[in-house]
Amino acid sequence: MGLIVQKFGGTSVADVERIRNVARRVAKNYDQGNGMVVILSAMAGVTDTLIDLANQMTAGAQSPDKRELDVLLATGEQTTAALLAMYLKTMGYPARSLLGFQAEVVTDCSYGNARIIDVRAGQVRKLIQDRYIVVVAGFQGCDSEGNITTLGRGGSDTSAVAMAAALKADRCEIYTDVDGIYTADPNVCGKARKLDRISCEEMLEMASLGAKVLHIRSVEFALKHNVPVYVRSSFNEEEGTMLVNGEQDMERPVVSGITYSKNEARITLKKVPDQPGIAAKIFAPVADAGINVDMIIQNTRAGGQTDLTFTVPKSEYQRTLEIERDVAARIGAESVRGDENIAKVSVIGVGMKSHSGVASKMFTSLADENINIMMISTSEIRISCVVEEKQAELAVRTLHTAFGLDADADAKK
Amino acid sequence: MGLIVQKFGGTSVADVERIRNVARRVAKNYDQGNGMVVILSAMAGVTDTLIDLANQMTAGAQSPDKRELDVLLATGEQTTAALLAMYLKTMGYPARSLLGFQAEVVTDCSYGNARIIDVRAGQVRKLIQDRYIVVVAGFQGCDSEGNITTLGRGGSDTSAVAMAAALKADRCEIYTDVDGIYTADPNVCGKARKLDRISCEEMLEMASLGAKVLHIRSVEFALKHNVPVYVRSSFNEEEGTMLVNGEQDMERPVVSGITYSKNEARITLKKVPDQPGIAAKIFAPVADAGINVDMIIQNTRAGGQTDLTFTVPKSEYQRTLEIERDVAARIGAESVRGDENIAKVSVIGVGMKSHSGVASKMFTSLADENINIMMISTSEIRISCVVEEKQAELAVRTLHTAFGLDADADAKK
Repeated sequence: MGLIVQKFGGTSVADVERIRNVARRVAKNYDQGNGMVVILSAMAGVTDTLIDLANQMTAGAQSPDKRELDVLLATGEQTTAALLAMYLKTMGYPARSLLGFQAEVVTDCSYGNARIIDVRAGQVRKLIQDRYIVVVAGFQGCDSEGNITTLGRGGSDTSAVAMAAALKADRCEIYTDVDGIYTADPNVCGKARKLDRISCEEMLEMASLGAKVLHIRSVEFALKHNVPVYVRSSFNEEEGTMLVNGEQDMERPVVSGITYSKNEARITLKKVPDQPGIAAKIFAPVADAGINVDMIIQNTRAGGQTDLTFTVPKSEYQRTLEIERDVAARIGAESVRGDENIAKVSVIGVGMKSHSGVASKMFTSLADENINIMMISTSEIRISCVVEEKQAELAVRTLHTAFGLDADADAKK
Repeated sequence: MGLIVQKFGGTSVADVERIRNVARRVAKNYDQGNGMVVILSAMAGVTDTLIDLANQMTAGAQSPDKRELDVLLATGEQTTAALLAMYLKTMGYPARSLLGFQAEVVTDCSYGNARIIDVRAGQVRKLIQDRYIVVVAGFQGCDSEGNITTLGRGGSDTSAVAMAAALKADRCEIYTDVDGIYTADPNVCGKARKLDRISCEEMLEMASLGAKVLHIRSVEFALKHNVPVYVRSSFNEEEGTMLVNGEQDMERPVVSGITYSKNEARITLKKVPDQPGIAAKIFAPVADAGINVDMIIQNTRAGGQTDLTFTVPKSEYQRTLEIERDVAARIGAESVRGDENIAKVSVIGVGMKSHSGVASKMFTSLADENINIMMISTSEIRISCVVEEKQAELAVRTLHTAFGLDADADAKK
């Protein structure tokens, strides 16, 4: 018995029948004597449909006003919250839906990508005390002036973890359409295994690399507020993956998982004059255009010249190319080249902090399969290599085996 | 220049193109220097779709929970309010959407049919002062505890008139898919004329008889708070019909309009023992079942017996019949008969207060066309007759001509 926050994603509430499944799962936990708070996403696809509607409305003349888009998008979670509470009542349970403003999820006023400042949850607490099942619309909050805000794609995860932190819940369960966190994408690597536990730090690296399981800010919240988070499937009863804070598990392997991303593109400026301040001239216009640069590599050539390569999101590739052609002309670089057919493959593990040799093992394994490494970047618990896009899957499988993560390898241990 | 509240119904905001039309109309009024508050309904059909969804959710096991149904239904107006504000901003106008709770439309807690208690409109006032176009989601409010409520079918009319009253607006324009209020349904009576003005009292009678132009509580608000209300079409620039308070116009005709309704059914208990308290025994069970009785007629027979006839909404006909069969058995009435094929035809006019002979003219005109009158009921400004359903249209046309309302008759004046 305790207080449980459960979050169900869009595929888990995609239609009436699935919402009924969610209701049954919630009711079961309630019947065991637990206090229950349920956070819901919009039905799968609804948010996209609403964005399409907004774009039709403004006829692509300009982006829809962000404040009003949030008002529009908030209807998605309002719908599922009302439907679930309605069905729980039909089942005979005391249930009540609350919208972001009613649950007092206070955010800043960055429409479309708001950050949670505070979850007051006064009414939530009262309803739990009165043994209500509280159903909260995820993804939404309101700013200090009462305007409706949304938290960005995947923001319901953050709604859930923030609510769990505010309520000091015993656990926060994130229900999704996968069983948990895997050592690699099972669609690419047949030998991928589900992890029983993963550290928040590793999860942050995975999320920032594009693994879509958890909203990155939800992991930050879990880390900061020490919320016990479980990632589970809403379609079965498996245990899922537990997010742990720090290195509680001394036996953990050096590498926990392999990820890859095909969402980046590479741009190279050739023969850049090697002068102080040149990097600022190259990157300031990109930053001004709101484009995030990920990896940067500089190779010094002979004769006071240098080649400079960096990656940006693939969606910003053409814009960045145009910006840098201007820059190159201005600073006297020889040429600008680009490559969209790249992938970033990463090995992640908190164990790396205390183990050497991970990088060399990675490079050697890739070399053995004739996979050429174009760029390298590292963090304390991650090593990423840019490779040719068509070799991404092979690279993932190679590294998965090399670091002893394969399901059959595990069985032999 | 002044402060104008404009309300647009579901057909006026049925799609993106129509919402753009609304935006242009609003912008034009704003450009003339007026303060603008716009109240919107949901897109035509959306509320029905949401009700269907709720019924699917509870699988018809029972009616959807009323509180949660209101949370669900409120998304309809939230959507149109966001879309209109978004488009006005694209057009370069300062606009902002407000939901019921943000506009502080305070209601009682009768979910699904809430009554407005107060419209505080603090933020509305501030935004008007700052020359914003304020777009308010109609049909919705919140109770004193912050729960979302809705005002019932057509409730956006009431949102608009109540907002106009709170803001002491110079005019409240109700835009709909008809040109205004007619002397009779133009689909039935080809000679029907649009009225330039109609009194609130007459409008109340029309609305209570099922004429769907205005939500009945909006007329009550207009009457009580002296709000100048205009009913106009959003598809043309015609002047529409003005609601006037009291009998400002001394030249007005005795009869302003003819209405009819086919939504009632008639039930007769034959040979009821004529004892004190018998009426209570007949009607209490009907009231307990939440069924509204409209007209009641009692004919005394010889021998201490009486026939009792009354009408109920057609949708409640079968239930009422069953109830009254039980009642008849209990009180010793001979039999219960029913008739669904009836219509109620009414003549309405504040002029009746000071004119006699309206009733006899009505009865004579109907008799001349061999239309049999089954039941009669009257108010100070209305006379209604129940006739055979198939004669309803003929009765309307006959009375329209008899009371000098025909378009050509008017031209001759």
